[in-house]
Amino acid sequence: MTNGLPAKLKPAARVTGQRQDVWSIINEAAAASPQQPIVNMGQGFFGYNPPDFIINAAKAALDKVDCNQYSPTKGRPRLKKAIADAYSPFWGRQLNPDTEVTITTGANEGMLSAFMAFIEPGDEVILFEPFFDQYISNIEMPGGKIVYVPLHPPKDGPTTTSSAANWAIDFDELEKAITPKTKMIVLNTPRRLLLFLRLIRLGIPPYPLPSLLLTIKTDNPVGKVFSKEELQKIGDLCVKHEIIILSDEVYDRLYYVPFTRVATLSPEIERLTLTVGSAGKNFYATGWRVGWLMGPAPLIQYVSAAHTRICYSSVSPLQEACAVGFEQAEGEGFWDQTVRDMRGKIARFVAVFDELGLPYSDPEGGYFVMVNMQKVQVPADYPFPPHVASRPRDFKLAWFMIQEIGVAAIPPTEFYTDANAWIAEDYMRFAVCKEDDVLEAAKERLRGLKKYIK
Amino acid sequence: MTNGLPAKLKPAARVTGQRQDVWSIINEAAAASPQQPIVNMGQGFFGYNPPDFIINAAKAALDKVDCNQYSPTKGRPRLKKAIADAYSPFWGRQLNPDTEVTITTGANEGMLSAFMAFIEPGDEVILFEPFFDQYISNIEMPGGKIVYVPLHPPKDGPTTTSSAANWAIDFDELEKAITPKTKMIVLNTPRRLLLFLRLIRLGIPPYPLPSLLLTIKTDNPVGKVFSKEELQKIGDLCVKHEIIILSDEVYDRLYYVPFTRVATLSPEIERLTLTVGSAGKNFYATGWRVGWLMGPAPLIQYVSAAHTRICYSSVSPLQEACAVGFEQAEGEGFWDQTVRDMRGKIARFVAVFDELGLPYSDPEGGYFVMVNMQKVQVPADYPFPPHVASRPRDFKLAWFMIQEIGVAAIPPTEFYTDANAWIAEDYMRFAVCKEDDVLEAAKERLRGLKKYIK
Repeated sequence: MTNGLPAKLKPAARVTGQRQDVWSIINEAAAASPQQPIVNMGQGFFGYNPPDFIINAAKAALDKVDCNQYSPTKGRPRLKKAIADAYSPFWGRQLNPDTEVTITTGANEGMLSAFMAFIEPGDEVILFEPFFDQYISNIEMPGGKIVYVPLHPPKDGPTTTSSAANWAIDFDELEKAITPKTKMIVLNTPRRLLLFLRLIRLGIPPYPLPSLLLTIKTDNPVGKVFSKEELQKIGDLCVKHEIIILSDEVYDRLYYVPFTRVATLSPEIERLTLTVGSAGKNFYATGWRVGWLMGPAPLIQYVSAAHTRICYSSVSPLQEACAVGFEQAEGEGFWDQTVRDMRGKIARFVAVFDELGLPYSDPEGGYFVMVNMQKVQVPADYPFPPHVASRPRDFKLAWFMIQEIGVAAIPPTEFYTDANAWIAEDYMRFAVCKEDDVLEAAKERLRGLKKYIK
Repeated sequence: MTNGLPAKLKPAARVTGQRQDVWSIINEAAAASPQQPIVNMGQGFFGYNPPDFIINAAKAALDKVDCNQYSPTKGRPRLKKAIADAYSPFWGRQLNPDTEVTITTGANEGMLSAFMAFIEPGDEVILFEPFFDQYISNIEMPGGKIVYVPLHPPKDGPTTTSSAANWAIDFDELEKAITPKTKMIVLNTPRRLLLFLRLIRLGIPPYPLPSLLLTIKTDNPVGKVFSKEELQKIGDLCVKHEIIILSDEVYDRLYYVPFTRVATLSPEIERLTLTVGSAGKNFYATGWRVGWLMGPAPLIQYVSAAHTRICYSSVSPLQEACAVGFEQAEGEGFWDQTVRDMRGKIARFVAVFDELGLPYSDPEGGYFVMVNMQKVQVPADYPFPPHVASRPRDFKLAWFMIQEIGVAAIPPTEFYTDANAWIAEDYMRFAVCKEDDVLEAAKERLRGLKKYIK
């Protein structure tokens, strides 16, 4: 019996046997907390709307008959053109909107489409650990086998403050992970840079780190921006062994240091690279489910074919609105504004941790702040439900904060293998993409932690 | 090499090796025709907007922050409740919106989610032929094997006019198709009823029909409404052998004869049944990508789990608008209006075929009219491109009509195996879900066929 189902009706392995995910645990805890309303700093959805010029474009699209009906499976021509035009300057040539861009139902379904397009059962996909959990199921759905490759800490060890740039891929190790069955490698950049630095500065033991901290994605709390040199070496290996690069670049407009788009390094690398983008992240609209993949026509055509078989086509009126978004973003000063706004929010929010004396990471991309809560003492006899008691300390901290001070945040060990969970167990992830009054409300409540800090 | 790709980069079998689909052929032909603009009566998208109360609800949702961000993976609570409330009267009990309804990215991704939830490699799924092509790829993605079961023509043969009800499932044959590996069966109802009748009345040879004409779906040109008795027998077999019933009921508000919802026949059958619905079909919004599955909690939970892994969540502001749609449809008289309007469009359109003396089917559900074009003579030396010349006569007719009279329609042999294509090769499928002025424009152009009718 699986959950009351007789054996004959049992579900497929791909949807069973997983422990409760962090989002359900935190959302359910927040709903049941005595501290209502909870200030939700957990999931990375925006606490404010897309800009008016995009909302107005969506409303205008709803008045047009063709914008409410099926779009072409590869996406609306206007959106494909707007994306091709917006990215052509980075590529240094005009991208072909008909053959080098395809629209997907969010970046998530876009990545699934890429795996479905190229992975046969037994094919291998290289991932860096820690990993975003959705990648795993997306690779396994077509029968792919995941090969993990770790990042290594700097040689000068636990005593020296060091930049994340020193956390290195062992390229011999990476090449040894490549087999004749290696079909794809997943990259993610830009990411938040400084956590490595802070981990070391705070005395979090960097050794032994059996596998660590590169990449990885939207909801992954820590990461590293790949340097141009690293991307070049990864790219060279992929060219040598003919491996498809799937580069998740959903935060490509929300970074505070320069970053390199791997596809733009050379024609040889571009030929192997699929770049993933997200209107949800670019335009503050995570519920719109509009994403895209860009890449060489011989690869993109199969991504499109897979997408057609998965979702048929993507949401029409919001594709149209996103087209207007790309057409007008530069003129509206939106890309610059989004960076200024987010940096302001980060500065506003982290002030409370300076007050409390809790160290934190200063993100260099995206909108997640990692706070070290080693100093926060949870009462020894505090009652936790079994599904929280059985998880690492960060889950208990998250539960405690929801119950006692009414702030929800995400425990980051969710994104680590059990063996490496200790790296993150004193941390809590806060999403700062919220209205300023929400940030202030969160700060006021977080001051309630003071009495638990020794 | 696959399309210029070296062997190491070759795409997965699931996205390759298929001939050009009918939609691409017709759309490309329409775009290149000298008769511009083409009157497009092909694909079943609506030529008009959802009603104002739903469009206004979508615009209102766009002003709400939470309606632009991630929805819960199982769908927005308001939409799940609205659907549960709308369907509870048919089920004769209150459906539980939290456990018996899950929202998907259109009916298409909903069906894929059901297959992904329950099909392991080698599991068998029973389909009736002809089949909707998307079913095939959706079943094969998780490794399912399709077992086809034909419908049989009436015993009193080619000389007698007969109702579609007489086209029968051989239940012994159906039961013999069941093996220990049979996991699911796909049904579709309501469908267009009278084509069988007309096929016989028009002298289309009903023998031999090695396999035929039940089901099957949205874009499938012919079908049959299952009688309550047939559904009961299918249901009884599924209960006996514990087989999950996936019932595609996307036209459940657009039918002109009563129909039975298989899930409502008995608690034993309901326990095995997943019912698929579509806001796109219900509310004239095929581009919104909002669908749902209803069924028993022990099955629905795994459909939700699969959907989460495929799309994460579905489009938020349009879910909210669909909730308002269900809340207000009865009060607005929308369900009755949609039936009256569509019947009016059918009557308006088919008049031209009476004028021309071309027989047609009178649909009893949905919005597709099947016209017999046996009498239309295409000039013997008419030039067809190779990808059309190699297909049955209906593809040539469709090409000819696009080039010479500027009307696009769909050749229905696309939905048959090659062995059975002859059944449909004189037919053309017209979608009448278009504005009245478009129907009149199509009629005026179709009068241009007169000179080709002998």
